[in-house]
Amino acid sequence: MRDFLPADKARRERVLAVIRERYRAHGFDEIETPVMEDYERLHAGIGGDNEKLAFNVLRRGLDADAIRAAADDPGALADLGLRYDLTVPLARFYATHRAELPTVFRAIQAAPVWRAERPQKGRYRQFVQCDIDVIGDSSARAEAELVVASLDALDALGLVGGTIRINDRRLLDWMLDAFGFAADQRAGVLITIDKLDKIGPDGVAAELVERGADAGAVDAFRSFLVRPQTLELLPYGERQIREALPDGAPDELIAQLVAIGDAVAAARPGGAEGGVPLRYDPFLVRGMGYYTGPIFELAHPSVGYSLGGGGRYDGMIGRFLGQETPAVGFSIGFERIVDLVAQTEDAAASAVVLVHDRDVALPELLALKAALVAEGSRVRLERRPKNLRGLLERAAADGYTSFATVGAGAARDALELKPLG
Amino acid sequence: MRDFLPADKARRERVLAVIRERYRAHGFDEIETPVMEDYERLHAGIGGDNEKLAFNVLRRGLDADAIRAAADDPGALADLGLRYDLTVPLARFYATHRAELPTVFRAIQAAPVWRAERPQKGRYRQFVQCDIDVIGDSSARAEAELVVASLDALDALGLVGGTIRINDRRLLDWMLDAFGFAADQRAGVLITIDKLDKIGPDGVAAELVERGADAGAVDAFRSFLVRPQTLELLPYGERQIREALPDGAPDELIAQLVAIGDAVAAARPGGAEGGVPLRYDPFLVRGMGYYTGPIFELAHPSVGYSLGGGGRYDGMIGRFLGQETPAVGFSIGFERIVDLVAQTEDAAASAVVLVHDRDVALPELLALKAALVAEGSRVRLERRPKNLRGLLERAAADGYTSFATVGAGAARDALELKPLG
Repeated sequence: MRDFLPADKARRERVLAVIRERYRAHGFDEIETPVMEDYERLHAGIGGDNEKLAFNVLRRGLDADAIRAAADDPGALADLGLRYDLTVPLARFYATHRAELPTVFRAIQAAPVWRAERPQKGRYRQFVQCDIDVIGDSSARAEAELVVASLDALDALGLVGGTIRINDRRLLDWMLDAFGFAADQRAGVLITIDKLDKIGPDGVAAELVERGADAGAVDAFRSFLVRPQTLELLPYGERQIREALPDGAPDELIAQLVAIGDAVAAARPGGAEGGVPLRYDPFLVRGMGYYTGPIFELAHPSVGYSLGGGGRYDGMIGRFLGQETPAVGFSIGFERIVDLVAQTEDAAASAVVLVHDRDVALPELLALKAALVAEGSRVRLERRPKNLRGLLERAAADGYTSFATVGAGAARDALELKPLG
Repeated sequence: MRDFLPADKARRERVLAVIRERYRAHGFDEIETPVMEDYERLHAGIGGDNEKLAFNVLRRGLDADAIRAAADDPGALADLGLRYDLTVPLARFYATHRAELPTVFRAIQAAPVWRAERPQKGRYRQFVQCDIDVIGDSSARAEAELVVASLDALDALGLVGGTIRINDRRLLDWMLDAFGFAADQRAGVLITIDKLDKIGPDGVAAELVERGADAGAVDAFRSFLVRPQTLELLPYGERQIREALPDGAPDELIAQLVAIGDAVAAARPGGAEGGVPLRYDPFLVRGMGYYTGPIFELAHPSVGYSLGGGGRYDGMIGRFLGQETPAVGFSIGFERIVDLVAQTEDAAASAVVLVHDRDVALPELLALKAALVAEGSRVRLERRPKNLRGLLERAAADGYTSFATVGAGAARDALELKPLG
């Protein structure tokens, strides 16, 4: 877990403000849920591996007997836990407040989550997730709105040129069937395919054999993986999607991916080479078990890792609401993005350091400060130190743009502002 | 703990943005600490009664033996806890990062805290605190800057006319000595005096007797409480402070309160009747045990309860840093203020609902939305429902200002925007 000092905190807030403002422009509304949810809800099997990483909150008022009894049932020690994602809380929120929300509800959540990860570089136990979700829309409109809003937010942060890799879980399932993988091995096979970028076709084939997958299926799949048209990153369109799949892929699923692409292209006519900032990736898997349809991942040419992702999860809200409800979400990688975005302090803003001697009367000093604040400046008071230069350098690093020295009897009109840095 | 729906969340974020912007103008810088702190630190006796209300986080990896052993030492079950205030984390933060911070550090913290309160109206287990603190300045400049910044923030929220009640813990101690209360009864006596507003002079006297306070001291104190000049809310100044106290009060402490008043008056010349938005209250106590000097509470004519408060706590940072460090803080009552502030959506902002038929092609629809977003509008897409009026009313309540119906082949130029609501 990290502390954020002023410069970092300011940058984080600026990035969040841009993302929120863009998402809001695209018709999304921000909500907030408590950081704690019921223990039972956090451990209901929806959160996948993250459930094991939850921080659980000790039940209040446990006596010695209750603690002893919990030795055989550690779950009895906790009644609440810190959320490990924003999806489980959103599903609970929607089930609770559905009557007060629009039929198609577009939610923004920008808030911290907690996971008890082993400490390692670049992994934090508290980090901000920034999600948008469309609940109540089963059409491709939902996916298209998420993709366009996310790319727009990335643009607004100066990260122009983002692309979205897209696939559909149902096409993956169909493909594994077509190659002859047994249905009961599908989950394991997907975990291996997810490593294709890292271990390549031969690595995937070897791991599939280790998993005990059917040898004929593995051979056929490996041959398919090494086809030139599979390894090439194709432009986006119906012909390319068909070519990237084995023969006979379901028309309806392909048509949905094409519909998303056409809509995104219309909203972002100059989006990328070929007009569509989308790439079909028949081997994109995404880890979570709850996806039921299109899945996507956000890439940017400046970095080799994903800057976000999401997908359709039509089954989950129903588990809370007891009624089928379509839903699709996109999570932008806030912690990664904040590291990429240059610190762009508003250059026009005036920020003044008033360096004053000890003999300046406090009322004079506060009146001077008030006058500058009233003019729209940010003002920091500093008693004159031995090392004035060090003080001014620190102030410049903190975003201050000018300074003035104040002696006894100084008035606003007599103040001489000198530029800093 | 509460969920916040879009309208509430938007209002909370607007209020926070105003407060942060004003505090920033006054030279304060925002920081952020993790929501969890070490269990030991949260239970070191600094947090007063709040320590008992902490949510503690279950240690990971406890086995059955460890749980059984904890029956006699429940503290062994937890290694972390959720913060119950922002002061303990600030002291820890300052001790950790002091070398990277200005000599006089002015901090903003605006973040949630958690207390396992019994559920009751108006009390929440998760709520936002909004604190400013000045660390490293022992002079009255620090108090004056806090008071001026807080009143300015209140003004900016439309709550003009706030006043600050002020006292000094050392004057309280001196006064109790002067009336003959025993030093070892002081803490209990202060708890009773804190109820003066509610139970009046006779109630205070009765409770002091119950506490076993010296009868002569209680009599003298009661007579003092019912003097006309004590019950009157006096204007602020040296003469008034002297009159409100028994004879012989320490000049130096009175001079400090006068210095704060003069500085605040200079910064806010039209502040209140009499020029100074301060009221000296010789019986203001404030609950926390860590205060060491001036203490204050924010009042506003529109409500009978306090809208914030704070004080000087010179001893606390030293407990973390091992070196005496002056500090003074002010906590504005965010949750109370957010309920008082009118919801002032930016009236100039354009927000458009596009109501479309099912036969409008998705690319056309997304292109229309993109065109309006590019013009600076917030845009929500809605399929035409049976009850169009209900949909438009909901959109108006959500801050949308106009709508247009979209048929197949519609272009931006042909779009007819009609005002909503």
